[in-house]
Amino acid sequence: MDEFAIIRRHFQALLPGSADVLLGVGDDCALLQPPPGEELALTTDTLVAGRHFDPQVRAESIGWKSLAVSLSDLAAMGARPRWFVLALTLDQAEESWLAAFAQGLKAVAAPAGTALVGGDMTKGPLSITITAIGTVPSGKGLRRSGAKPGDAVCVTGTLGDAALARELGLATQCARFDPDREFLKARLNRPSPRLAAGHNLRGLAHAAIDLSDGLAGDLRHILEESWVGAEIRADRLPRSEAFQHLAPPDSGLALQAAGGDDYELCVCIPQERLAEARRKLDVPLTEIGRITREPGLRWVDASGGPLALDLQAYRHSW
Amino acid sequence: MDEFAIIRRHFQALLPGSADVLLGVGDDCALLQPPPGEELALTTDTLVAGRHFDPQVRAESIGWKSLAVSLSDLAAMGARPRWFVLALTLDQAEESWLAAFAQGLKAVAAPAGTALVGGDMTKGPLSITITAIGTVPSGKGLRRSGAKPGDAVCVTGTLGDAALARELGLATQCARFDPDREFLKARLNRPSPRLAAGHNLRGLAHAAIDLSDGLAGDLRHILEESWVGAEIRADRLPRSEAFQHLAPPDSGLALQAAGGDDYELCVCIPQERLAEARRKLDVPLTEIGRITREPGLRWVDASGGPLALDLQAYRHSW
Repeated sequence: MDEFAIIRRHFQALLPGSADVLLGVGDDCALLQPPPGEELALTTDTLVAGRHFDPQVRAESIGWKSLAVSLSDLAAMGARPRWFVLALTLDQAEESWLAAFAQGLKAVAAPAGTALVGGDMTKGPLSITITAIGTVPSGKGLRRSGAKPGDAVCVTGTLGDAALARELGLATQCARFDPDREFLKARLNRPSPRLAAGHNLRGLAHAAIDLSDGLAGDLRHILEESWVGAEIRADRLPRSEAFQHLAPPDSGLALQAAGGDDYELCVCIPQERLAEARRKLDVPLTEIGRITREPGLRWVDASGGPLALDLQAYRHSW
Repeated sequence: MDEFAIIRRHFQALLPGSADVLLGVGDDCALLQPPPGEELALTTDTLVAGRHFDPQVRAESIGWKSLAVSLSDLAAMGARPRWFVLALTLDQAEESWLAAFAQGLKAVAAPAGTALVGGDMTKGPLSITITAIGTVPSGKGLRRSGAKPGDAVCVTGTLGDAALARELGLATQCARFDPDREFLKARLNRPSPRLAAGHNLRGLAHAAIDLSDGLAGDLRHILEESWVGAEIRADRLPRSEAFQHLAPPDSGLALQAAGGDDYELCVCIPQERLAEARRKLDVPLTEIGRITREPGLRWVDASGGPLALDLQAYRHSW
């Protein structure tokens, strides 16, 4: 079967009916109508089998996560998802795998209001690259660079769930009938991009980033781009019930601070806007520290005393 | 070295100074200002080592070709390149390889006026996915679907050079001091996207496509999308001097018709606009046949007699 036949068979439900798609899959390019008065937000992410996901994970989850990680970047800009293209490299085009993969993509694309407008299928070691485009009213995008001394540092949802699921080997395990394990597994395999939160934080947050590499590394990007520092209360990092039940006491904090794969938002908000932000969000927003004039990231305990965290082992690098 | 340090070191020269890039590499997304009154043209392409290129090819050529194949899609829409993102999967981040790869990208990006605005680097089997965005005045994009009976079927440049280079194993050979082999090797490793031609054919051509998979397959897309057929004179397919010198007599036509990797444009133009089109182009435009009401692609010889071409072997499929 050729590439077009595969796309028509499996990805039909992802194709656009939207007026802003002038020409979708099937020409040299897609032709798209950008909304007037808006900027484009553009992001690209690759997931490689064996590195970013276990190839034994269900294809539906692989499809889900591939798109979710890109939409999480759009969420961190406060952008509304519009269009995406899929570059799919596969060893073999197995019908049932493709159908399930497309199902997973659709489960994320449909509620987010984004449409597949193009792609490329190639033969090779399994990997997925999705490039997503969103739009945001001109000048309103949330950046990493606007944090100010005194801002509350906040995170959406809970931290460490995905990393704990990875530690426990839950990605490919049947976790039915164990609500804690099922919850953690879903947090790893099927993250929910915080699109509504990002959208509603526009005009309130001074800076935002999504927590894909873990709080310690990602917050550092905000601090560097904003030329500020932060003091973070380790005891305040929000934990899910499942995490509280199952996290090993000695590594819980490291998983939360540097385990990665959280896809929550970390935002810096002026103290006086915090209550308003909380009212507007559909997800809990936890204050975990504050931005300081003094540069660097400092971890403190419940009494404000300094805490030495060695998180180097979790740093992704070459 | 982390991802950002690598990007800063090697890809700096590709980063934008342009006013339409509000925020480039280094945030969750790039923020881009689309020009008013224009549509976006969007395309994504993956090149996998061992399938689309020999990993022994010089890194500069790999960088060149990775971007050129995407810009060729923009050329086929008559779009002006604006921005691109690079998803690079590498086994190891070798300094000299990255520097040369970036050099090759730049050699294509700079004259085309396009800027690198984001990317993702991951560890894994070598592959490159580039997503390119261009813009085209509203309603002026060249599509595959507008060909009309009577239109002249034309191609830019010459056909079969890259396929012949592949047959002769020139991709990784030193071809210096042999002008024919050097020419063919460059046609395979360093194709020139026909951006000016695509741009100048807007308003003249009824339909266009780029010849990445070879004339036989790609022209068929125009015929299907336009609900027409075509009669093509096999003897008229344009041959470079190097091709004439080195192509084996028995397989020359197959290489030209279905060898692929040409990155020339195939366009359908009303007969009465042909002279005007030729005047406007910076590259030879050869009339190779005409669009017919009767569906299907028919090959004919110099006297107009039917010609049976078996090109199935060249068809890319799963």
